[in-house]
Amino acid sequence: MIGVVCLNPALDITHHVAAVDWAGVNRPSAVYARPGGKGLNVARTLRAIGAEVLVMGLTGGVTGTGVESALSELLVPTAFTRISGETRRTFAVVDGRTGGSALFNEPGPRVGVAEFGEFSVAYERALAGCAAVVLSGSLPPGLPADTYARLIEMAAAARVPAVLDAHGEALLRGAAARPAIVKPNLAELEALAGRRLSTARGADRPAVAAAARELRAAGAQAVVASLGADGLLAATEDGSWQATPPAAVDGNATGAGDAVAAGLVHGLVLGRPWDERLRHAVALGTAAAAAPVAGEFSHADYTSVLGTVAVHREEAP
Amino acid sequence: MIGVVCLNPALDITHHVAAVDWAGVNRPSAVYARPGGKGLNVARTLRAIGAEVLVMGLTGGVTGTGVESALSELLVPTAFTRISGETRRTFAVVDGRTGGSALFNEPGPRVGVAEFGEFSVAYERALAGCAAVVLSGSLPPGLPADTYARLIEMAAAARVPAVLDAHGEALLRGAAARPAIVKPNLAELEALAGRRLSTARGADRPAVAAAARELRAAGAQAVVASLGADGLLAATEDGSWQATPPAAVDGNATGAGDAVAAGLVHGLVLGRPWDERLRHAVALGTAAAAAPVAGEFSHADYTSVLGTVAVHREEAP
Repeated sequence: MIGVVCLNPALDITHHVAAVDWAGVNRPSAVYARPGGKGLNVARTLRAIGAEVLVMGLTGGVTGTGVESALSELLVPTAFTRISGETRRTFAVVDGRTGGSALFNEPGPRVGVAEFGEFSVAYERALAGCAAVVLSGSLPPGLPADTYARLIEMAAAARVPAVLDAHGEALLRGAAARPAIVKPNLAELEALAGRRLSTARGADRPAVAAAARELRAAGAQAVVASLGADGLLAATEDGSWQATPPAAVDGNATGAGDAVAAGLVHGLVLGRPWDERLRHAVALGTAAAAAPVAGEFSHADYTSVLGTVAVHREEAP
Repeated sequence: MIGVVCLNPALDITHHVAAVDWAGVNRPSAVYARPGGKGLNVARTLRAIGAEVLVMGLTGGVTGTGVESALSELLVPTAFTRISGETRRTFAVVDGRTGGSALFNEPGPRVGVAEFGEFSVAYERALAGCAAVVLSGSLPPGLPADTYARLIEMAAAARVPAVLDAHGEALLRGAAARPAIVKPNLAELEALAGRRLSTARGADRPAVAAAARELRAAGAQAVVASLGADGLLAATEDGSWQATPPAAVDGNATGAGDAVAAGLVHGLVLGRPWDERLRHAVALGTAAAAAPVAGEFSHADYTSVLGTVAVHREEAP
C-alpha cells in the first residue's frame, strides 16, 4: 500500500458559463465539484494504474465531508483526521465565449496542535502497512514549516521511504530529513536556488542539474525536477538522468506534476531502476497533461507515450 | 408556529477579493457561506422578531447538509426532506476595488415524484402544529407549476392560512388556490399583468392597484405588492391600502422583500388589522434593506422606522 498524505485538500468547484457577465448574474450551464489538492491527484493517478493507496490528511466541515464522499465515489480509500475548521474550496469560472477562466482559492483552515497530534498518531499507525508514502501539496495555516520533515522522520523510523512534493521552506526542511525523492518543478527549484534556471528556449538543463545536485546535497536521496514539456531531470544515487517526452504537450501542468509524483513513487515501490521509473513518470505526466481534469488520464495516451520517452544518463554516479 | 416552506434552498458563498483579476488566480481575503434562498431569509427574519418557526423543504448532498448545519448554528429549527440531488450553491465575488460583484447561481437539483411525495407527507403532518405557512421562492427542476397550489390546498384543508411569495406560473396557479396573501414585487406583478406598472418616477400606483385587484380576483384573498422604496400596496378584504417608508432606502432588495413576507405572516398570525400588518412589514423591509446580509436586520433600524411609516386606506372594501 502507498500512503498519500494530503494535509490541505480542497473541493474544486467549476462553473462553465456560456458567456460570463463579470458584473452581473450568471447561470452556469454545467457545474462540477471534484476532490482537489495535489495529494488527491497523486492518489487518483495511483489508483488508475492499479496501485493500492490510502489517503491520509485533514478534513473539516461539510466541505471536508464533500471531499471524502467524492473520493469514496471514485473508490479511493481514505482515513482522514477530522478537524474543527472547514476544508477549503477552490472556485473556477470558465467563460465559454473566450475560453478564459478566473480562479478563486480559499485559504485552508487553521489546524490546531492537538488536531495535528491526532493526525500524527493515525499516520504512524498507518505507516506499518505502507511500502512508501507521498507527501504532497501546501501546508494549511497553523502547521510549521518542518511538518513534512517530521513526517519523513517518522516514516524513516518505520523504514518507509518518502516522496516529497512541496515548495519553499517546507521543501527545504523536508529535504534535510532525507526523503527518498523530492520532486520540485522548475519554479519551485528556482525559488529554492534563488536564481533563474531557464532561458527563453526553456529549462537551462546544466543549471537545473546543478540546482538539483545542491538540493541532493542538502539531504534528499534523489531529486527529480519536473520541467513541463522538457520532461524530467534527476539527480540520484545512480547518477544524473534526463527523460524527455516525444513532443511538447501543452495542457494541465498541475495534474501533470502530480502524475509524475505518482509514477515516481510507484516505480520506487516496485523497485524499478531509474531509467524505467523516469520513463513511467514522464509517460504518466504527459498523459495527465493531455487530460482536461487533474488526477485523470487516458491509458491509451500513457501507453502510446511510454515507448517513445527518451531516457539517458547524463553523468555516472 | 409558522411553517416556512423552502423547496429550493441554497448555500450562498461569498468571496471578498481586494482587487479581482477576472482572468487569473485570486486569493479571497474573506469567505462567507450562509444559508440562502428566499424562504430561509423569511425564517431568519421571523426568528429575529421572536416568532416560532419550522423550516420545511428539500435538501440533498453535502451542500444540503451545509445549509442544515448553518441554520442549526443560527438556531432556526428545520425538518427538511432529504433528496438524492445536490442542493444548489450561489457564488458571489465582491471586488474590493470597484465595489462591483459577479454572481453565479447554480441550478437547483432535479426533484423526483417520490421525493416530493415524501415531503408532502411531512408537510401535512407539520401543518397540524402551524398557525400559518409561508411558501417562498423558486421551484426546483422537476416540480410542476401547480406545486404551491397543491400545498395551499393541503393547508386550507388543515385550516392553516398560507402566504405565497413566488413568481410566474407558480404564483398564478398558487393564487387560484385562494392563499390568505400573495406578495409579488413590482417586476413579478408586471410579468403577471403583461404590462408596465411603473413610470420614470417609480411605481404607477393606480396601475399597480388595478393589477393587484386582478390577482385578487384570480383567487388570492389579499395581494400585497412590494414596491421597493415606494413601500407596499395592498388589495384586501378590508379595502385597498398604501404603506410608505419615511424616505427612500437603497440596499438589499431580496432581503427586503423576504422581510416584508415575514412581517405579513407575523401580523396574520397575531390577528392584527391591515394597517398594523403593513406598518410592521414596511418597517421590517426597510430595516432589512439597510442590512448587508439577506435575512438580517438591526432592531434599532426597525424600531426607528416603525413610527414613521405612513399607512392609509385608499379605498374602502
